[in-house]
Amino acid sequence: MIAAFSISPSGIGPSVSRSVADAVRLVRESGLPNETNAMFTNVEGEWDEVMDLIKRCVDEVAKSAPRVGVVIKIDHKPGVVDGLHTKVEAVERHLAED
Amino acid sequence: MIAAFSISPSGIGPSVSRSVADAVRLVRESGLPNETNAMFTNVEGEWDEVMDLIKRCVDEVAKSAPRVGVVIKIDHKPGVVDGLHTKVEAVERHLAED
Amino acid sequence: MIAAFSISPSGIGPSVSRSVADAVRLVRESGLPNETNAMFTNVEGEWDEVMDLIKRCVDEVAKSAPRVGVVIKIDHKPGVVDGLHTKVEAVERHLAED
Amino acid sequence: MIAAFSISPSGIGPSVSRSVADAVRLVRESGLPNETNAMFTNVEGEWDEVMDLIKRCVDEVAKSAPRVGVVIKIDHKPGVVDGLHTKVEAVERHLAED
Repeated sequence: MIAAFSISPSGIGPSVSRSVADAVRLVRESGLPNETNAMFTNVEGEWDEVMDLIKRCVDEVAKSAPRVGVVIKIDHKPGVVDGLHTKVEAVERHLAED
Repeated sequence: MIAAFSISPSGIGPSVSRSVADAVRLVRESGLPNETNAMFTNVEGEWDEVMDLIKRCVDEVAKSAPRVGVVIKIDHKPGVVDGLHTKVEAVERHLAED
Repeated sequence: MIAAFSISPSGIGPSVSRSVADAVRLVRESGLPNETNAMFTNVEGEWDEVMDLIKRCVDEVAKSAPRVGVVIKIDHKPGVVDGLHTKVEAVERHLAED
Repeated sequence: MIAAFSISPSGIGPSVSRSVADAVRLVRESGLPNETNAMFTNVEGEWDEVMDLIKRCVDEVAKSAPRVGVVIKIDHKPGVVDGLHTKVEAVERHLAED
């Protein structure tokens, strides 16, 4: 499955990039395929390993914020391999064909 | 923490209430405080018990659909008790005061 | 269509119920069918009227916060009437039948 | 502001890349800064132009599906220019410093 997740600390001022960086570091150290963009970090793996990683990210951010908001969107489709790339490629292929 | 989650099976036609009902049954049997509205089911508890419940709901829905989309929004605020009610009450109190 | 939306001011401390109440007031004054729970406010209507309402809510909250996060989930199904109630009733009916 | 949005047609089978491609084409023709990843398309602009674009994307997808789910996450922070790049760069800078 692929999960896109976003962690928003609140109660600590409007600039949160330091806190977000601490979470992104955990993602990159996880060994799971991942990609961080302006709004979400995408991670691909099995439910338990992805969710365990997100939990550790939330715990990390919660160290420096009294409240943390999390948004997770999951695409659960058994049998997909390297979905982080193949999903985008399928869209690009349709666009190139037209 | 409180989690609002929504599970959307796809590839099985536009009517999904049967499949959603199977998941809601698991939520009600969990013993965790919960509430189902037109768009999300809200559940209150610790991270592990809430996430384990959502996983079981996704597995249940995935039995009858080749693909499942999940959206989860979490409000993680340590020390909050009965947030399912107190959050709405705080808003209502402000509205009544004005 | 039905939209569930949540507006999160940031940079103003962890307690946001006053700010959220200002937005809920606009929703209730809109005349659109609506329901506020612990995580989202659900509103039912046509795209333009719902999105115009959400914009006014965001503008209201942005008056007192340097940054505002918004999450919107939409169920767009032409021909549905009173979906705020009928969606939940369909689930309850399945649960009662089993 | 930046909006991340995802449009999920339902009732048309599990493969939706053709339908998603039709929406991505509209995004690219819009002239707004944008980026499509495996889970969301990010678009940067003013509220009205971004929301008008998303509406046209939903209408396009709704032509071939009886039901459409939409998830939108917005980061509303007045004064930010080129947030699609600067947000990621701020995180990378923190990671490089440590």
